Amino acid sequence: MNKIKPRTLSGFMELSPRRQIQFDRIRDILAQVYRLYGFGPLDTPAVEAAEVLLAKGGGETEKQIYRFTKGGSDLALRFDLTVPLAKYAALHYNELAFPFRRYQIGKVYRGERAQRGRFREFYQADIDIVGDGKLDILNEAEIPAVIYHAFAALGLRRFKIRVNNRKVLGGLFDLMGLGEKSAEVMRTVDKLEKIGPDKTAAILTEELGMAQDDARALLDLLQSPDPMAALAAYQGKNPLLDQGIEELSAIARHMEGFGVPADFFMIDLTIARGLDYYTGSVYETVMLDHPEIGSICSGGRYDNLAEYYTDKQLPGVGISIGLTRLFYVLEEQGMLNDQPAPAPADALLLPMTADLGPAVALATALRSQGLRAQIYTEPKKFKAKMAYADKIGVPYVLFLGEDEIAAGAVSIKDMGSGLQQTLPLDQAAAFIQQGLAAQAGGKPIKE
Amino acid sequence: MNKIKPRTLSGFMELSPRRQIQFDRIRDILAQVYRLYGFGPLDTPAVEAAEVLLAKGGGETEKQIYRFTKGGSDLALRFDLTVPLAKYAALHYNELAFPFRRYQIGKVYRGERAQRGRFREFYQADIDIVGDGKLDILNEAEIPAVIYHAFAALGLRRFKIRVNNRKVLGGLFDLMGLGEKSAEVMRTVDKLEKIGPDKTAAILTEELGMAQDDARALLDLLQSPDPMAALAAYQGKNPLLDQGIEELSAIARHMEGFGVPADFFMIDLTIARGLDYYTGSVYETVMLDHPEIGSICSGGRYDNLAEYYTDKQLPGVGISIGLTRLFYVLEEQGMLNDQPAPAPADALLLPMTADLGPAVALATALRSQGLRAQIYTEPKKFKAKMAYADKIGVPYVLFLGEDEIAAGAVSIKDMGSGLQQTLPLDQAAAFIQQGLAAQAGGKPIKE
Repeated sequence: MNKIKPRTLSGFMELSPRRQIQFDRIRDILAQVYRLYGFGPLDTPAVEAAEVLLAKGGGETEKQIYRFTKGGSDLALRFDLTVPLAKYAALHYNELAFPFRRYQIGKVYRGERAQRGRFREFYQADIDIVGDGKLDILNEAEIPAVIYHAFAALGLRRFKIRVNNRKVLGGLFDLMGLGEKSAEVMRTVDKLEKIGPDKTAAILTEELGMAQDDARALLDLLQSPDPMAALAAYQGKNPLLDQGIEELSAIARHMEGFGVPADFFMIDLTIARGLDYYTGSVYETVMLDHPEIGSICSGGRYDNLAEYYTDKQLPGVGISIGLTRLFYVLEEQGMLNDQPAPAPADALLLPMTADLGPAVALATALRSQGLRAQIYTEPKKFKAKMAYADKIGVPYVLFLGEDEIAAGAVSIKDMGSGLQQTLPLDQAAAFIQQGLAAQAGGKPIKE
Repeated sequence: MNKIKPRTLSGFMELSPRRQIQFDRIRDILAQVYRLYGFGPLDTPAVEAAEVLLAKGGGETEKQIYRFTKGGSDLALRFDLTVPLAKYAALHYNELAFPFRRYQIGKVYRGERAQRGRFREFYQADIDIVGDGKLDILNEAEIPAVIYHAFAALGLRRFKIRVNNRKVLGGLFDLMGLGEKSAEVMRTVDKLEKIGPDKTAAILTEELGMAQDDARALLDLLQSPDPMAALAAYQGKNPLLDQGIEELSAIARHMEGFGVPADFFMIDLTIARGLDYYTGSVYETVMLDHPEIGSICSGGRYDNLAEYYTDKQLPGVGISIGLTRLFYVLEEQGMLNDQPAPAPADALLLPMTADLGPAVALATALRSQGLRAQIYTEPKKFKAKMAYADKIGVPYVLFLGEDEIAAGAVSIKDMGSGLQQTLPLDQAAAFIQQGLAAQAGGKPIKE
């Protein structure tokens, strides 16, 4: 028969069994933390009507989208989880309770140019809180707490959540008479960390026509080591700025109450986030030892989630973690923790007799106590069986030979230490559980 | 602004928040049971090269597939999880440990004619054990155990796993001289339950040319109340039949050891499964009170998983649960359990003061003890707040008014019983945890 060459598309992540276990651990912990904060799951289709997904239209999105027809319908794969949320909130407005808190962890699709570390199919792990007409600032203060607890639960230790407020930036730009150019100034300021203050100043003055002194004063302010104190000098001069300062203060004030250590949080007036639709708080999260990766969790406050679908005003706040890219980076940096062992089973049973009945009975007993057990069924040589155990990385191998069966016992090898001992059958589960519990503190990320 | 009408495509399931929680519970329990049996997770892309997905080609598959081009590449959405597994096993043959046990729960796509209860995007929850060259019969015996424990863990009580063996059928057909028509007879027999013995006999005689007596003898045998005893009369006459009988016996023999109660398992010679590639055991699972739904979990043994991609012989055994359809049926039948409450939070905090600090502190304390807590942040009237609590179905509402704050206490309302009491702050978590634990036995399905 002619064979088709098996291949996986470029830009589509497909993990090895052990890596998949590690990926799933990270995904599950994120979901668990999201749930702790009262976010409920949502699972919208990956395929939507193209007209719905492209309601906003324009720009990079249309170029990157996977779009196709089927039975006369114009369809597309979702390119983020925000547009489907907007559709969902508009479509089910009458059935939903607002504020509506949802998390969604799912695959999205962007036909970007394939390059190392860039994916065309990738997971986003999003949370959003969507209000009906209004949404209290406390929700914006809660977001850094979710970010902190999520990454802390994953085992990350050296990261910083940076928070800014678009109203502060907008108010300052107003004050400086930049009203019409506000959006361009915002985008320029957003590049500050990347291109440095001199180039930023040059763009502000040469391209956007700011006076040298104003540009310098703005950059000094934005980079001030004590931004709230620096902002105080501008208070009472512009209502938008005042509101922004108040919101930033409210967020900072609640950090301790939300359990976010001071070291992990900072107000950073230089971040702006590129997206036009943010109107209040904006968030970025950086790994302190890997600033080159950029933000691993970003988002912000928006005033009108579903404006393309409904007249209802649905303000909200949300963040997104690019999970596939994060996982790729963690693997590249050697930051995936191999403890506990990313194995498909806790115990591998190696029957040494033709009758597999005793192995079946033991596997059933172990499983009934919550242990993941696998019976190695193939009549191979001992060496091949042990090679299999090594390859799947199982932490415990259980031998059931004639002697063990006659004695109602099992020989258990701890694959980590290499130690082997024979125990009565009914002590096997507890022994393995104790061993596993000793490793259970391990988090998916090591730093 | 012109609005786009928000809509979700027909045939694409999109659940309400409470239903999504119930769906996720079912999905997570299936994954957990699969893991107990030593299956590791796999997550292949939803998009593959069309050439790869359609390697087998032909038939309904090609008509139903979502196929499109992007940047010159001919792509398609996967229509099952078996073809991607075959590709994965062939592509990563050298890195995998065989027998390779994987589970995959993911969405697949089929552009079927839309009708009630039929989905174009739906979850399959699959397990497969793939051997390298050989695979012991014990693996086929383990499959009913996984099916039993999966549905039992979901709360299903009245179901039956039916097992047959294609070698038995093939051997019998050989014996009766039907060699060339074997596949057609197999398909006819598979319809027996649906169309009844008379129509089946008519097809066998009139269309497939069997003698009246032979057809009747075959149908009597297949429908025998004691199939193993009935088969014994045919033993020693055909090697394929003998092997099939031996395999069926081995499976039946191990059911008790694998913890499958006799009531939940039967050998049923009338099931054949339509797919050509099964070569040994075949499985179906029916809900006893809803036979009209058909099999909710099916699969079988195959000899050559990846023949379109590789010369390696990869025999295996697997089953698939059509999760989206199962969920749809359970909802239709009123079989989804509302206990424990499918709410996005265990506790909803209602601050009654302008200062939200005490609510933030309490929410943080509850979350640190593993409770899912949400603060209701909007300055609405009491009635609106309670309506919100009702709508999200939260089991406990916590009031923090001035009196409570002054006393270091919180008033907790059990939304199930309507009872309300005031407790010291540091007893709140334990109180709620006790209440939740009392409900925790609830399984996702009630019968």
